[in-house]
Amino acid sequence: MFVPLDGDPVLFVQELELENAKASSKNCIIEVVKKDEVFIDKIASAIEDYKPNHIGLDDLSASTYLSLIERFKSIKFKVSADLVWKLRMIKDDDEIRCIRRAAKLADAGMETALAAIKPGVREYQVAAEAEYAMRVAGSEGVAFDTLVASGPRSSLPHSICSHRKIREGDVVFIDVGATFNGYRSDITRTIVVGKPTTQQVKVYNIVLEAQEKAAKALRADVNAREVDEVARQVIRESDYEKWFIHGLGHGIGLDIHEPPRLSPNSNDVLKLGNVITIEPGVYIPHKWGIRIEDTVLIQKRNAERLTKTPHEFIQ
Amino acid sequence: MFVPLDGDPVLFVQELELENAKASSKNCIIEVVKKDEVFIDKIASAIEDYKPNHIGLDDLSASTYLSLIERFKSIKFKVSADLVWKLRMIKDDDEIRCIRRAAKLADAGMETALAAIKPGVREYQVAAEAEYAMRVAGSEGVAFDTLVASGPRSSLPHSICSHRKIREGDVVFIDVGATFNGYRSDITRTIVVGKPTTQQVKVYNIVLEAQEKAAKALRADVNAREVDEVARQVIRESDYEKWFIHGLGHGIGLDIHEPPRLSPNSNDVLKLGNVITIEPGVYIPHKWGIRIEDTVLIQKRNAERLTKTPHEFIQ
Repeated sequence: MFVPLDGDPVLFVQELELENAKASSKNCIIEVVKKDEVFIDKIASAIEDYKPNHIGLDDLSASTYLSLIERFKSIKFKVSADLVWKLRMIKDDDEIRCIRRAAKLADAGMETALAAIKPGVREYQVAAEAEYAMRVAGSEGVAFDTLVASGPRSSLPHSICSHRKIREGDVVFIDVGATFNGYRSDITRTIVVGKPTTQQVKVYNIVLEAQEKAAKALRADVNAREVDEVARQVIRESDYEKWFIHGLGHGIGLDIHEPPRLSPNSNDVLKLGNVITIEPGVYIPHKWGIRIEDTVLIQKRNAERLTKTPHEFIQ
Repeated sequence: MFVPLDGDPVLFVQELELENAKASSKNCIIEVVKKDEVFIDKIASAIEDYKPNHIGLDDLSASTYLSLIERFKSIKFKVSADLVWKLRMIKDDDEIRCIRRAAKLADAGMETALAAIKPGVREYQVAAEAEYAMRVAGSEGVAFDTLVASGPRSSLPHSICSHRKIREGDVVFIDVGATFNGYRSDITRTIVVGKPTTQQVKVYNIVLEAQEKAAKALRADVNAREVDEVARQVIRESDYEKWFIHGLGHGIGLDIHEPPRLSPNSNDVLKLGNVITIEPGVYIPHKWGIRIEDTVLIQKRNAERLTKTPHEFIQ
């Protein structure tokens, strides 16, 4: 899309996307790139018509960037992806409605997954049930590859599903998300199949406390790094900090990972209308891991939890 | 990943991906980027150790590219994505086994979708059944957003599912794919609910003839453009060419759209071990559309169809 300072933006689409583009865009001119035309040539011709001195670019591929600067030597190009992200980070009411709906669908998927988990069932079968439940309830598809990690596999924070059979005594975490009108949701819950050990109960309660304290620290205009530190502090006090090996959370919207980032070295400041995840986790290598994650909306003085599946699974 | 001319490649991963990286990589050194470290700094330090004169880059983002050239003014960087694509386009035996499995899963999804289609069922419900069938049979997830387009929506080649109820007399196309070990498959079939019109039978047979003639023209060392032309020629003879608004097909593997491209302006030459789709389609605006697509493996003298759902639906 080419957006001049004055005049209408021009959206370039392939012919096979034309009707979709008409249905899903507004306030822009749609130009078709025919199958015997080259995308970059069409965009170049729009640039030539407009003769700008400066162009700010969303984060293109290096090859597209290089072909643009080669073609227009007198124009100053600058990667200005932040301009777009600044807009995308603040969700408007329509966007929040979509994410709210996606969060409700994720809760439906989680409820189904939790009910499906029992000894003898394979991880990917649990995922199949959760994804089906979200889909028939109206999800456009998964927000990301569903994670169902059982037993020692739960110590890997980013494992997708395997064919492993769930066993009595396993820790199992489920990380699912749905999509509605292109907007995504993200939720993780962890359970133990059967009776948890003393250490599992302890770590579960630490992770839960970390998540709930972080949730209480959320509000507009707070530093993302400080909220990460609230959760990290809870885990540090119990000496499990070395196994909280990722940031506290991330923005979510049309993409599953967006700014702002909540991590020890983030410079982001949370704003009214951000939608983010909060997901502390402790992963004990080769043993098991526990994570609790919700999708939340940043409000002026607090945050609203959009995913609502209860937290109290291990006691 | 940093690949020196001599010595082992270095794979940089976040701490939470370490165990996955160990399990799924070989012949490389794995370096962890900790949560308080910056990705580009770690890569820069590997570059500094090696002191190369030239670096060929896979297609990075423009911002990463710019930060590399800014940091290493004496090194010549060149976007050389083709080096990687040349490797990825030729599938080895292991990769072909994975795609073969993914194709079989897509056939299972298609069979379920076709059985689910009847008047009163909504498009996304058909998708839910197909996706569930693939998932419980072992698919890691959809290869792309499932398309189920009924009635006038079938005239939009890239429509995702809507909540539209399928009606008697509708043309419905289903475009689904599965994933196995990261490798994808892609299949489309089109049916009519009830009795097809004379024009629907005619167009179906033209598209089928185009697909089958193109399939017969496939072999190693043929120009992709010529195979596109074989299909286009069949459709042109019947004056429907203006509604065949996309290329004949695309490579498929770890990504759903890869080189080579089969289109009127493609310069690609098909090679032994390419896996591609062939998917001619005719979309009559605001009326209906018909597409038939298979995933095929390029052999020395012909091609093997990996998706095997029968073609004869409309007669």
